[in-house]
Amino acid sequence: MSKKDQEFKAEVEELEDLVAGENAEATESAEVSDELSELEKVTAEKAALEDQYLRAQAEIANITKRNRSEREMLQKYRSQDLAKKLLSSIDNLERALATEVTDDQGASLKKGVEMVLESLLNALKEEGIEEIPAAKGTAYDPNVHHGVQTVPASEELPADTIVEVFQKGYKLHDRVLRPAMVIVAQ
Amino acid sequence: MSKKDQEFKAEVEELEDLVAGENAEATESAEVSDELSELEKVTAEKAALEDQYLRAQAEIANITKRNRSEREMLQKYRSQDLAKKLLSSIDNLERALATEVTDDQGASLKKGVEMVLESLLNALKEEGIEEIPAAKGTAYDPNVHHGVQTVPASEELPADTIVEVFQKGYKLHDRVLRPAMVIVAQ
Repeated sequence: MSKKDQEFKAEVEELEDLVAGENAEATESAEVSDELSELEKVTAEKAALEDQYLRAQAEIANITKRNRSEREMLQKYRSQDLAKKLLSSIDNLERALATEVTDDQGASLKKGVEMVLESLLNALKEEGIEEIPAAKGTAYDPNVHHGVQTVPASEELPADTIVEVFQKGYKLHDRVLRPAMVIVAQ
Repeated sequence: MSKKDQEFKAEVEELEDLVAGENAEATESAEVSDELSELEKVTAEKAALEDQYLRAQAEIANITKRNRSEREMLQKYRSQDLAKKLLSSIDNLERALATEVTDDQGASLKKGVEMVLESLLNALKEEGIEEIPAAKGTAYDPNVHHGVQTVPASEELPADTIVEVFQKGYKLHDRVLRPAMVIVAQ
């Protein structure tokens, strides 16, 4: 082999080595392609998680807001059930006070009952419970008055006017605990 | 150039092309290495999001649980404030009923007041408010009784026994609204 031949051969071998290296990298390149699809997969999973996380955050905000408003409602109307049950006691106290008394003992008892009624009504007022305005000659409001009977309207008491109050009504803040029972002119 | 030389030259050129191609892939390989670090980055970000999402889920469960228990407490003790305010009315009704009456009107008034007191106590009972047991000769319990005075213990009334009840106490479920005021033997 001439010297030139040997040089050529050396060069060819060197290049062949490089080519062999290239083939090894081709295998690596297939792995890389796997890695690329893995990247796409993980990126998609990350996006889905991001979405779930944002939804969870929104849910937390909603739950917190809803619970605050529920608590406020519970707080505002907490006395509703007990107050409703007290209404008949108040009716009965008022009825008892209509009794005529003739002696000092009776008068003393009546005085005591009047004070109890006053303190009961004050306790209710402090909890937001008040009598619904209803009086003869004032306007009938079906939202807070319950017409149990009607009578023909007159000049003095025109249509949709309260003629008589049968039973007092009460409300807790904006909520009607019991409408006032009235006779309405029609 | 001999034919052999030409063949060698062609072979060398071919191999050089391959090597050039390999170099192009080397650049690609650098890009691939970027993609790999991108995969690591996205995978880490995904893991962080997964953690945040799980924490948010746990928070939702906690908030929901806490709110349920808060609502239950609000519901259970909702009548506390109104009930506390009613206690003095009940005391006063009982005091009024201690009045001696001498005639029918007085008796009628008293009867009416007795019924009111009964309906008041029933309303309170329905809301979970009951009188705290306290009677002469029974054990003094500092959790529900308030000793306002002490007297020396005797054979009949040994130490830590209630000698007299000054004022009734009331509780709402397990909560003391007002302790019973008592005299205790010591």
